[in-house]
Formats: sequence, C-alpha cells, structure tokens
Amino acid sequence: MPSPGTDPSPYSETMAYTHYTEIPADVAERAARVRLVVFDVDGTLTDGRLWYGEDGRETKVFHVHDGLGLKALQRNGVKVGIITARISHPVSLRAEELGIAHVYQGQKDKRACLTGLLDALRLAPEEAAFVGDDLPDLPAMGIVGLAVATANAHPWVAERAHWRTRLIGGYGAAREVADMILAAQGKAEAERDRWL
Amino acid sequence: MPSPGTDPSPYSETMAYTHYTEIPADVAERAARVRLVVFDVDGTLTDGRLWYGEDGRETKVFHVHDGLGLKALQRNGVKVGIITARISHPVSLRAEELGIAHVYQGQKDKRACLTGLLDALRLAPEEAAFVGDDLPDLPAMGIVGLAVATANAHPWVAERAHWRTRLIGGYGAAREVADMILAAQGKAEAERDRWL
Amino acid sequence: MPSPGTDPSPYSETMAYTHYTEIPADVAERAARVRLVVFDVDGTLTDGRLWYGEDGRETKVFHVHDGLGLKALQRNGVKVGIITARISHPVSLRAEELGIAHVYQGQKDKRACLTGLLDALRLAPEEAAFVGDDLPDLPAMGIVGLAVATANAHPWVAERAHWRTRLIGGYGAAREVADMILAAQGKAEAERDRWL
Amino acid sequence: MPSPGTDPSPYSETMAYTHYTEIPADVAERAARVRLVVFDVDGTLTDGRLWYGEDGRETKVFHVHDGLGLKALQRNGVKVGIITARISHPVSLRAEELGIAHVYQGQKDKRACLTGLLDALRLAPEEAAFVGDDLPDLPAMGIVGLAVATANAHPWVAERAHWRTRLIGGYGAAREVADMILAAQGKAEAERDRWL
Repeated sequence: MPSPGTDPSPYSETMAYTHYTEIPADVAERAARVRLVVFDVDGTLTDGRLWYGEDGRETKVFHVHDGLGLKALQRNGVKVGIITARISHPVSLRAEELGIAHVYQGQKDKRACLTGLLDALRLAPEEAAFVGDDLPDLPAMGIVGLAVATANAHPWVAERAHWRTRLIGGYGAAREVADMILAAQGKAEAERDRWL
Repeated sequence: MPSPGTDPSPYSETMAYTHYTEIPADVAERAARVRLVVFDVDGTLTDGRLWYGEDGRETKVFHVHDGLGLKALQRNGVKVGIITARISHPVSLRAEELGIAHVYQGQKDKRACLTGLLDALRLAPEEAAFVGDDLPDLPAMGIVGLAVATANAHPWVAERAHWRTRLIGGYGAAREVADMILAAQGKAEAERDRWL
Repeated sequence: MPSPGTDPSPYSETMAYTHYTEIPADVAERAARVRLVVFDVDGTLTDGRLWYGEDGRETKVFHVHDGLGLKALQRNGVKVGIITARISHPVSLRAEELGIAHVYQGQKDKRACLTGLLDALRLAPEEAAFVGDDLPDLPAMGIVGLAVATANAHPWVAERAHWRTRLIGGYGAAREVADMILAAQGKAEAERDRWL
Repeated sequence: MPSPGTDPSPYSETMAYTHYTEIPADVAERAARVRLVVFDVDGTLTDGRLWYGEDGRETKVFHVHDGLGLKALQRNGVKVGIITARISHPVSLRAEELGIAHVYQGQKDKRACLTGLLDALRLAPEEAAFVGDDLPDLPAMGIVGLAVATANAHPWVAERAHWRTRLIGGYGAAREVADMILAAQGKAEAERDRWL
C-alpha cells in the first residue's frame, strides 16, 4: 500500500544515475551496440499531461535534465530521434534547440516510421533503442535491440521492455537512459570530466 | 503518518492496471453491464487544479493515458460522456479530439443531466458508470450501476462508490477505469494484442 | 529520512477530512466561534509556485476542492476574505467566481489590513480565523481566535498555529479548513446531505 | 526501493529549515564567510521543467518561499546573483521583482562569469556560495567557498557539494539555503522576530 500521500514538492533524492556496475549484463550488452535512440514524446519526454489553453493552443513541458542527456548522446556519436502520434509545435521547438534532426510527429504507426528511419540511417534494428510508456510504443519497442520503458509506463509495456527507468517521463527518464547508454559504452567518465 | 515528503517527480511505479482476477466480483458484475461511462472533469479528468491566466483564460490539464483509455472504450462499444459544473473551452477541445459527443458543461444538477442522457441513449441506469471525486458528483453516482471514485475523492464520495481508482484524477484515473471495465467485459487482451 | 522519491501523480489517499471527533477540543472551541476566515494566497490558496510568462503575465493555480469549501462556508454564514502581499488579476477572477467580496491585494502589513476588515464587519478578533504559510502571515495569525498553518508552512509559522492542515496549499488545504470549521459548528452533516 | 507512489498533492511536512545547531561545523564556517550567493536557474530556482508554448514562448515557474529568502539575504548584506546557460525573459522579470541586479543569462562558461562577478564586487571566492543541480554548475561550484547542491541534483554534483538541500529546486531549495546562511551568520532569529 502506498504511503498516505506526500507533498508534491519537498524533500527528495538525487537524479537517477546508473553506474556501469549496476547495469544488468544483458542490458549493458544491448546498450553498447546502440547508435540511435528514439523517444516517444507524451509520457516519455513529458509526464503525459496535456495542457490545453482556451485558444486551443497546447503547452508541452520538457525537462532541462533530459536536454543535457540528449546533447551528451549526440556529442558521443549516438543519434537521437523522436517519434510521436500527436502533433504540436513545442516538440519542434524543443528538438531544434537540442539539435535533433529526426523528428516525426503525427505517426500512427511508430514501427513503420522507425523502420524507415533505420533504413535511411543504414542502421540495423539491434543498433537502435526505443523509449516509450504506453501501448502505441509496443510495436516499435518490439523490433529494437534495446527497448526501454519509463517508470510511469503501462504494465503491459513495462513487462516487454529490456530495461525500466527509475524516473518517470518528463522528470529525467530520458537523461537516465542517456547516462546509462553512455556508461555502457564506457563514455560516462569522460562526459563528467568535461566539467571538472 | 505520511513519509516526510518526497520529490514531485522521480521514481515511481507503473500505471495502475487492474487484472481481471483482481476485480472484486460485485464490481466485475457491475462493470460487465456498462454501456456508458460518464466522467466529471475537475478532479476526475484533471487533478482539480484550476489555471487562471491574467487575461481570464483558463488552462485545463488532461492526461495522454486517459485519452487512450477513452478511445479504447468507444472502440469496444462503450459510450463515453462528460458532465461538469464548470464551463471551459479546453474541455470541448479535448472531447472533440477523443471523439466524445456527449459533453455537458455548466451542469449544476448532474443527476438530471445524466438522466436525460440515459433517456436519449435508451439506456437503463444500471448500464451506466459515473466517475467523480467530490460532493456534486454524489447525486449522479447514486443512480448508476457502477459508481467510481478517484483516489483523490472526498471521503464522503469514496465511501459511497462501488470502486475506487488507485490513481488520482488527471494522472490516469480514467484510464484505470477504462482498463478495468474492458477487463471485466473480457476485451482487455484483445485491446493489448492490437499492439503486439 | 524521506522515502527515495515517488511519482508526482499516481496512487494516493482521499482528500483530507477531519471528523468532528478528530478535532482537538481547544481547536473545536476556537472554530465554533469563527464568523470570518481570511486566507493568504501564495502557498495557502496555491502551492506557492509563481508562473511567469514571457510577456510578464502571471498565472495562478487554484483548486476546485478549495472552491467548494469556500462556498460552503459562505452558505453557512461564515464570511471569507483574502489578504495577500502580491497583486495579480487571477486572484480577483477567482474571488469573483466564488462570491468573495473581501479581497485585499498588495498588503505589506496583513495585520493592519485584517484589523480594518474586522472593524468594518464589527467582528472581534476571536471571531476570525487566518490561514497562512510563511512569515508575513505571522502578524495576522497572532491576533485571531484561530490561526491555521498549511502543511507546507515554514516551521516558525507551523509552531505558532493553533491547527495545521494535512494538505498543502493549493491542493485542498483551504477545503480542509472549511470542512473542519463546519464540523466544529455542527453543520458538516447538513452540507453533505444536500447532495444525497 | 521507493514506496509504490503517492499523490502529487496531499499531506506533507513543513518547509525545510535548518536550525543553527543542525548545520555541520565545516558548513557553518563556510556559510559564515559568505557575502554573495549565486544561483543557477533551471533545476535550482525552478524544478527543471521547461514550459514551451505553441508560440515559442517559455514560462518559468519560481516559488514564493524562495523569494522571501532571497530578499532576506539582501536585507542582511548578502548579495544575490543568478548565472544561467539559458535565456528567458521571465528570469529577468523575477530578478527585477526581487531586487537582484547581478543576472547573467546565456552563460556557457559559468565559472568565467562567476570569476568576473567576484572581481567586480571585489570579493574572494571563499566569500561566495554557488547553488546548482547539474554538470554545467560543477566548474563554478569548484571554486567557491560554499558549494550547494539541490536535492534533485545529479549524483556527480551532489557528491562534490559541501551541503545538499532537503528540498528540490523550485520548491524552496533556495529558501533553505538562505535560511541556513542567515542562521550560520547569527541573523536568523532577528529575521523571524521582524514578524512577531
């Protein structure tokens, strides 16, 4: 049973970070091969909440911690993509800011979209990771080398993923994936040392 | 006593999903008969927070997980309705996006509104479910076959419901209701397998 | 020590409600005399977060549960007031919607403002309650018959209050105060029964 | 392991406040020397979430509790600065409101910016504190007398800080820092007594 409820804000632990020695061997092996990480948007790069204004405009809420992770991936030769069923301008704005060129919105069939992207980049499915949280992500997660479910994922998605993040979407789950992949590829310490 | 407070974001469990075997027998029986599910808005499809801009415009915050559930209900022949005491344009926008035709805003007497809807759809009260969180929902909850209270409901509402969700409104409570009803009607696996 | 962090959304308990038998005797006595409840805004009717747009406009986030409580107080002959140090249009909009006439914004000296309001309403300080969360609320809390601190209050405020809510500001703390006062005045059951 | 998830809102503890006797001796010594506190923005004065509107405009969410702390620091002769890698108008608005003159946005090299500020103010690095949450804050944190990590900081940042707040950024972490520094400088009681 859950604790009787807590503050939306106060005390907490640090961001989730998975040290190389904490990554399960089979996940580390899968992550070491990854050249492309594709993210769902709602529930994965956001917490799944949809903000509707009176004028019909939508607000999207991303996280600064995720942004640093997506930039670190690209700096280390891992491409980043976005595939989402919905369409909204903030997604384009955020992707542009992070230098993400592979952005596909309005995709009802995420697997088909991912397959096309793999072809264009001449990558094998085993070289790709897909990070998602709900049923429409399952087809794409089913073909990649590394399928990741965020902590807030539907149980049916979580049980079909190779790895689950500790953080929920929109609050650092994508950063956690980035940190883990870089750790599995032996590049985490160099990333950290850039700042020391 | 609550734990001393926690982060608004980090670690979590997966979305709430109620497997067929976890549904109490009397609830399953009630849910199996449901042909119409009516939702309150504030506190049920949202977490009850009201966003006021300087220009008097209101923002509503829905959840992508709920949307998938409401579409799954309709795809399986269960109608979806919305009855709310307040009036705001984002509710209409969200309802249109989800293909929900039965949207009644500005309803002070939710029971009267529901009764009219049942008449129009030629449904008996036992064929309807109502999902709410606060006192104004009680009259409607009192006449339906399946009365559901969200996890954030007032105790007076929770104690009069046939079933309580584990998630709060605006964070997947409606999806949890949809998943449970489809499970009770033996349609959950087929919904999942659409994505496999 | 806090638990290692939790989801911002999922599972929870019901709204806080204090049954008559749970109210400490001295608090019940104080609450029974209350004819006016004055609320601070930021951190009390909201969770203290301040939303700034690029255009300098501010968004305020209230809660639907609080609104029902403030209307119930007024329906039962208890006046409601708002005294806040900041100034923003959403506060006026929300107050108007709830029929609250006594709204004082931009008040650096909350005690002086409260004293003036008591004079105008010909009420003694013992007939007033003040609900706050931070140091600027202390002077007003120091003169009223019932001083309430929200769950998110600064320790210096909490230790000087007659009663502390279980919920934080902006998430139902004001409703909790309203429910408690009506229970102490023997009017809670009648309020509930309006909906049965 | 985390508890199974909790409400984003309900029950909680009070704001974090560190009494003089609770401050570790070495931290108290460092804090006693501080004449300037510099804050990162995203993840430190906010919770790190980035709000993007359809029109490309960004909303920033600060906290009223933090504002009171930043004003108390300045009232007691401790200067306050802001150094952030991103650029947004709400940061300027909030800084102006709090009387913070030293605001540096768009700073990729936070250490260089901080060094320049120290020169301009004729302060030694040991007289400065820097509060941050992620890797880009490490260089600045490495040279100051008091390096503080918010509760939501990356583990690599947390392990290099002299002190960690109990609250996360955007929910009172900055207030906690202000309260601690004033306590270490023997000025906390006087601040409190202003309101008694």
